[in-house]
Amino acid sequence: MNAPQTGHLAVVGLGPGPDHWLTPEAAETVTAADDLVGYLPYVARCPERPGQVRHASDNRVELDRARHAIALARAGRRVAVVSGGDPGVFAMAAAVVEAIEADPQPADYVFEVLPGISAMQAAAARLGAPLGGDFCAISLSDNLKPWAVVERRLTAAATGDFVMAFYNPASKARPTRIHDAFALLRSLKHDETPVAFARAVGRPDEAIVITTLAAADPGLADMSTLVVIGSSLTRIVAGPGGRPLLLTPRSVPEAP
Amino acid sequence: MNAPQTGHLAVVGLGPGPDHWLTPEAAETVTAADDLVGYLPYVARCPERPGQVRHASDNRVELDRARHAIALARAGRRVAVVSGGDPGVFAMAAAVVEAIEADPQPADYVFEVLPGISAMQAAAARLGAPLGGDFCAISLSDNLKPWAVVERRLTAAATGDFVMAFYNPASKARPTRIHDAFALLRSLKHDETPVAFARAVGRPDEAIVITTLAAADPGLADMSTLVVIGSSLTRIVAGPGGRPLLLTPRSVPEAP
Repeated sequence: MNAPQTGHLAVVGLGPGPDHWLTPEAAETVTAADDLVGYLPYVARCPERPGQVRHASDNRVELDRARHAIALARAGRRVAVVSGGDPGVFAMAAAVVEAIEADPQPADYVFEVLPGISAMQAAAARLGAPLGGDFCAISLSDNLKPWAVVERRLTAAATGDFVMAFYNPASKARPTRIHDAFALLRSLKHDETPVAFARAVGRPDEAIVITTLAAADPGLADMSTLVVIGSSLTRIVAGPGGRPLLLTPRSVPEAP
Repeated sequence: MNAPQTGHLAVVGLGPGPDHWLTPEAAETVTAADDLVGYLPYVARCPERPGQVRHASDNRVELDRARHAIALARAGRRVAVVSGGDPGVFAMAAAVVEAIEADPQPADYVFEVLPGISAMQAAAARLGAPLGGDFCAISLSDNLKPWAVVERRLTAAATGDFVMAFYNPASKARPTRIHDAFALLRSLKHDETPVAFARAVGRPDEAIVITTLAAADPGLADMSTLVVIGSSLTRIVAGPGGRPLLLTPRSVPEAP
């Protein structure tokens, strides 16, 4: 009897959507996989290939999906867990490592995470240079953490004068959380702080709104929107063609 | 007389180094450019092409380089300002937008920023899932900001219990700053907080060290190192092949 082939488990970042933002490493790994595992819209992005098995699942079943992928890899298959954006940034890498940690069987397969362009980077590219200084990324979803933790982090980020990027700013189940976040930020930061809503960047329905904290309508944010809140130094600059750009300068002046 | 051709100015992220992390968009833009402008090691990464002009400069002249690129674009040329990693993350995008803002002449060229895989993402991929929760990215360089601002941000990031990623952790000119940062973090965070030094990820001299805040030797960090400091929930997990992985779980428990 031959020993089974060593399995391979890759968590693959597909980027924000367009093929021109898909790394060669991710494209090759998806093509070579025996099995694709992921949330349905991400699996649907991958070209179909005869002989490849596609396991598309609903959202909010990340751990089940991760366990399934591990079982396939243990059986000697080449498995790609496909994730939007970067799998390490509010995506599948943490769920897979959690499943590896909880797995009572030895992990006798090769494991790797393949980075991808995250929504924050795609949004920043369109906006000019909003992340030119120190920044933080916060998921506003309170599915997996208490809202008090989100409030504590928003307050800390304002105290540290970080640029902020919000993932998962709103959902049908939690339509008011983004309003709560803006109410808190308005109590902590200047009215004229630049704010951007960058929706579906790189996809056909891309939409960019640049405004200020006082004028912003938090209702613009849906689950496809990346929200950027400037630091005290972020400003709106007239770019080529009259397009507004966000700039967080590299330099922070000495305090007066 | 014909009207001059409309120029094109792209700030291009080349990623951490290997070609498999270079996006097709970045590769095509570099190939199509009339002029490549950038810090010498980044220009050297681009394949040479007959007819293309290479303008490689020393580090720390970002604004001069940006002004030069703008002048070329205004003259109708296709210009690629090449940057390591993601140009929006502690790289060339902010310098170029600053130069656009300061430019007294109208910006009659097309401008775009092309995202790339940043050092933080490459490091996170190798480490497993250190960025599974909210995180912040901080440049420890005090060339462009007072050290008091860095201290304020480290303190805020610890207060908010963010995972932290440090860029520019050390240089020959400022070898003690990383020691100062660790001394501050040791006064604010638990001894057992996981810490990683991820050096030159994706390049031949890649080196990964996973340790704890108490045991870490800050002297391991050089300018090619991305340093990760865990949140209170980050833990070290035994991965496949006995390789240690960092996991910041997606869930934050309710306070007791």
